[in-house]
Amino acid sequence: MNRICKLFNIKYPIIQGGMIWCSGWRLASAVSNNGGLGLIGAGSMYPEILEEHIIKCKEATNKPFGVNLPLLYPETEKIIEIIEKHDIKIVFTSAGSPKKYTKRFHENGIKVAHVVANSINARKCEEAGVDAVVAEGFEAGGHNGREETTTMVLIPKVKSEISIPLVAAGGIGTGRTMLSAMVLGADGVQIGSKFAASVESSAHENFKNAIINAKEGDTLLTLKKLIPVRLIKNMFFDKVEELQNKGADNEELQNLLGKGRAKKGMFEGDIEEGELEIGQISSMISEIKSVKDIFDEILNDFYLAKNEVIKFDF
Amino acid sequence: MNRICKLFNIKYPIIQGGMIWCSGWRLASAVSNNGGLGLIGAGSMYPEILEEHIIKCKEATNKPFGVNLPLLYPETEKIIEIIEKHDIKIVFTSAGSPKKYTKRFHENGIKVAHVVANSINARKCEEAGVDAVVAEGFEAGGHNGREETTTMVLIPKVKSEISIPLVAAGGIGTGRTMLSAMVLGADGVQIGSKFAASVESSAHENFKNAIINAKEGDTLLTLKKLIPVRLIKNMFFDKVEELQNKGADNEELQNLLGKGRAKKGMFEGDIEEGELEIGQISSMISEIKSVKDIFDEILNDFYLAKNEVIKFDF
Repeated sequence: MNRICKLFNIKYPIIQGGMIWCSGWRLASAVSNNGGLGLIGAGSMYPEILEEHIIKCKEATNKPFGVNLPLLYPETEKIIEIIEKHDIKIVFTSAGSPKKYTKRFHENGIKVAHVVANSINARKCEEAGVDAVVAEGFEAGGHNGREETTTMVLIPKVKSEISIPLVAAGGIGTGRTMLSAMVLGADGVQIGSKFAASVESSAHENFKNAIINAKEGDTLLTLKKLIPVRLIKNMFFDKVEELQNKGADNEELQNLLGKGRAKKGMFEGDIEEGELEIGQISSMISEIKSVKDIFDEILNDFYLAKNEVIKFDF
Repeated sequence: MNRICKLFNIKYPIIQGGMIWCSGWRLASAVSNNGGLGLIGAGSMYPEILEEHIIKCKEATNKPFGVNLPLLYPETEKIIEIIEKHDIKIVFTSAGSPKKYTKRFHENGIKVAHVVANSINARKCEEAGVDAVVAEGFEAGGHNGREETTTMVLIPKVKSEISIPLVAAGGIGTGRTMLSAMVLGADGVQIGSKFAASVESSAHENFKNAIINAKEGDTLLTLKKLIPVRLIKNMFFDKVEELQNKGADNEELQNLLGKGRAKKGMFEGDIEEGELEIGQISSMISEIKSVKDIFDEILNDFYLAKNEVIKFDF
């Protein structure tokens, strides 16, 4: 049996990335109801908002779902208390040490996956007792690693260094890319952009349209000095680049970013002044689809590609 | 039958990238003798040197081999005359318009492949009558596209836009990455870094050692304003970054580059002051192997991965 399906008790090894401003209870429950693993993205939620989403998600599905928690979040402690209070059994952590909370999560019967962008941190995850590693390549949307290692190179490298289940992320949004990632050594995949543009995503309609209209080269990794993030090139991006070209320091960049840039773009729909975090695969997304249609498409495509592989011979 | 094997009359759809300072007659003939397609890299050769390599390559193999020709090369006309004089039947072009020479090559019975980094240029290749497209992702060594699209995203995108044979490049150096690229839609693969570090490569021993010692994040795409190039971070790289951070213009960068930086690093072995062009996959290369051993390893690994795919089921 597939190790990711077994670990999370799901039908397909397809995990929906826990994305800020996109993945509330509607998206997470739809993914879980379709046999994948839905994740509520706590990174853009106040603790009481997260609680509301957890309650609604439980009403909407009886399948396993989880919470994605960036560990640099200021209210991490409160968030974890809510996770424990509502008996959530799966947590995906990122942007911090996997050592910090894994023991506590395990004591509460919670399975932990941690997101990394290089094999050194993947090894640290295994040492910390984490249950699965998500290795995310350069092509992924949002926050990203400094090594800029792409999924094609990252997955075999991480696979060669760890023995726990491995989930590939970055550049995956079709059955063909899913199979390709599994050939590289992943047990399953995490899909972000494709679900960000789904009917059930809580992203603003303008942001969803910006995703389906994005062409090759329309996203770029920027803010490398501060914290690298992949986003759609717009007026906000131009301002970031201009400041960076002038040699601005982190404080100036932080001031430009302000507090609500991602919310402004992704949730409120200001596609010029907002921060639009999305992956390169957006150039392959041309329609806003329901989660059910996305699953049908991915699985169809996966089995088609699998049948082609059998014929590869020289 | 595999379309790339048929087009070039080779056994395996494995093409050795025509790399400056690495791929002379020894490497090209070894690759062709092992059932792949060897390419002599004309980009670092004076016309008379290329002629010498072609003559020696013909003595060393009776299998098909080709010449890689960057079209921005100042002596392109002389190079093409030598290609025609010696009845070379395969040319890989890059860094210029595929329209310029394709008709002339075809009139001389020469098959043409052209290297691109986005689907727009791939379509232009098909329109120009080119026989095959090489789509090269962000993770590849040396000159690279401005869109920074990775192999995982680029190959399905290009595949969706063209119907002629497609070769994937960037991040490929094992049978597993080869199969993965073919799952994404490629008919074959072009492998650079792995062959740059082979016994038969004409690269300096110091450069080969720098490749096998490279870790994750040790290469980076730089010189983005001038012409993006992926290379190993060393003292030369630091100087480039320093100049760029100061807001240097193209002339200043060109002055730093000078004329012989790549030769100094890759051929003469000055690994601090030279330009060391290599791909991200170098982090997965740990040994200088013969071309024969590389082929054995890739093919073994390819069939192993293929047999695993058959078992993927949910």
